[in-house]
Amino acid sequence: MTVFMTNSSGSLRHTKSEMMNSADEQALSFLAAERARWSELDENAIAPIDAVIDLVRAGGKRIRPEFCISGYLAAGGDAGLQSVISAAIALEFLHTFALIHDDIIDDSSWRRGAATVHEKHAAEHRLNHWRGESRRFGESVGILSGNLALIYADDFMSDAAPNVADVWVEMRAELIIGQYLDVLAAARFSGDARLSRLIAQVKSGNYTIHRPLVIGALLAGRPDLADAFRSFGVAVGEAFQLRDDLLDLLGDAETTGKPAHLDFAQHKMTLLLSLAIERDPDVREMVTDPAATPEKLHRLLMESGICAEVESHIDKLMQLGHDAIACVRLEPGWREELAAMAHAVAYRKR
Amino acid sequence: MTVFMTNSSGSLRHTKSEMMNSADEQALSFLAAERARWSELDENAIAPIDAVIDLVRAGGKRIRPEFCISGYLAAGGDAGLQSVISAAIALEFLHTFALIHDDIIDDSSWRRGAATVHEKHAAEHRLNHWRGESRRFGESVGILSGNLALIYADDFMSDAAPNVADVWVEMRAELIIGQYLDVLAAARFSGDARLSRLIAQVKSGNYTIHRPLVIGALLAGRPDLADAFRSFGVAVGEAFQLRDDLLDLLGDAETTGKPAHLDFAQHKMTLLLSLAIERDPDVREMVTDPAATPEKLHRLLMESGICAEVESHIDKLMQLGHDAIACVRLEPGWREELAAMAHAVAYRKR
Repeated sequence: MTVFMTNSSGSLRHTKSEMMNSADEQALSFLAAERARWSELDENAIAPIDAVIDLVRAGGKRIRPEFCISGYLAAGGDAGLQSVISAAIALEFLHTFALIHDDIIDDSSWRRGAATVHEKHAAEHRLNHWRGESRRFGESVGILSGNLALIYADDFMSDAAPNVADVWVEMRAELIIGQYLDVLAAARFSGDARLSRLIAQVKSGNYTIHRPLVIGALLAGRPDLADAFRSFGVAVGEAFQLRDDLLDLLGDAETTGKPAHLDFAQHKMTLLLSLAIERDPDVREMVTDPAATPEKLHRLLMESGICAEVESHIDKLMQLGHDAIACVRLEPGWREELAAMAHAVAYRKR
Repeated sequence: MTVFMTNSSGSLRHTKSEMMNSADEQALSFLAAERARWSELDENAIAPIDAVIDLVRAGGKRIRPEFCISGYLAAGGDAGLQSVISAAIALEFLHTFALIHDDIIDDSSWRRGAATVHEKHAAEHRLNHWRGESRRFGESVGILSGNLALIYADDFMSDAAPNVADVWVEMRAELIIGQYLDVLAAARFSGDARLSRLIAQVKSGNYTIHRPLVIGALLAGRPDLADAFRSFGVAVGEAFQLRDDLLDLLGDAETTGKPAHLDFAQHKMTLLLSLAIERDPDVREMVTDPAATPEKLHRLLMESGICAEVESHIDKLMQLGHDAIACVRLEPGWREELAAMAHAVAYRKR
């Protein structure tokens, strides 16, 4: 898809990018103030805050703040308003919380090109020959650092506006319960495509695109956009998740900043895998065979032609997303910008 | 201390107890509705909700809701107001969150007379011969169930009133950072009495008595009570923590509903232990001796006379608490009731 850059889309992107920078700056200066305040109490108190700072500083794609700010501007929100900046910060902190806890749950050792929080602190424990178990110490620091990011997220969202409270309640609950279903599906490894699609929707899709867009629209006073943004977000969110699965399958750790084939090592019942199970009896058989290794399963998937099929499914989802916002009233240039953002998310390389 | 039960204190307790029952009923009916709603999405989605329900149903002392409602009524708040009930529910959910996560961090296997959340789900994993590691599965469910309790706490507190937002922010941050300092002190095991007192204050004292009382006073429109309630709460909170340490030292698992001598098994740098280190060179030596077992340390403490000293310190703290609220304006009967509650907390048997 080619996006024609007019002057208007240039200025629109400028506004969006200025607001995203402002969210980043405010988030980091808030964290710096927290760090200073707690270090006065005790110099050791800052480790969980530093864990949050390191992860926010390490970059990441800022997809959720971008969709929130875009939903807001597309709906005609005033560029100068603080509430949407607070909401964007809340969404990034919520994501930071989810990453820190998910890395413990997934036993993942690196993230954004550095050691994960629990790995870093387990290593600190080993190095210092402290008492107790290094693994438990590292995971405890990870649990607490994630909790801190979650309460910071809540504090920023409660600053945003009372009319987003319901969406915020729903979004956090479905993130947590979606993650539980994901953990359970990995343990059972039963290959239920309906469940995998549901998990992808509640855990990734809603939380990454649908809810941030709707929060933006609500803050701009446009609740009428909720349905269109939901349909758009559900379709593009599924494409986002399928791309995630494909990137893990094709596995280039250098580019993604996280280990390759992690889904396989962790027996993840991904959406991609569940689609492969549905269409290919060999895959189904291997999944239910306790003797099959992650490596064998990976090889079979690579040879099964599932990649091409998933690519074509992603194309269809993009069309669905496109159609969902084709007829609603948006500010000039924003239909094209949202389509370009969907494209960037669905066809990303990392 | 004898509390003379007048008719007035009887009616005051009746009001308090009715409000506490109402908080309990609302909390459980909220959880039942959440359970029904999520089970419609997927029948497996309810395990993290059930974990919260089980723990709330299993009882517990409801100390935090009681101090919140008491602070509110003592400050002259109207018994019919929903906001203080919502705040009381939020405090109990926050405590539920802290218990579930602390049990993972402390590797504790039972709580309120039943298996802890992570233990229960690790056992489920083993029993079903699911994929992956049972310990990680159990701890993942524990992490997620705790997170769910935390967001429920936030939702109820955001319903309460905007003027408690600052206290709520501070209270959750200090709970998390206090817990981190506790984990770090256990790992280092250096016996720093100042740090142990700080941890007891930010982690237990503030969160158990001081903050709940202040939230109650704020909801009743009496911010002038904050200082007196802080002094009262800090003193009684320290007594609460010392009693906790004593109960663990003297260890009657049947009565407390959790394992005896857990602090020792987990190398906890408790306030009691740090006091013992300060006064007794033998204890200091054993603490720094890597060859000393938890059992030896426990025996030495029992023989050191620290129990009597801590009892006398608790008496002094009770006097401080008493003095803190001696001269402030409270509703009739409440000075005595708060003193009786402090007494119950500081001299409790479980």
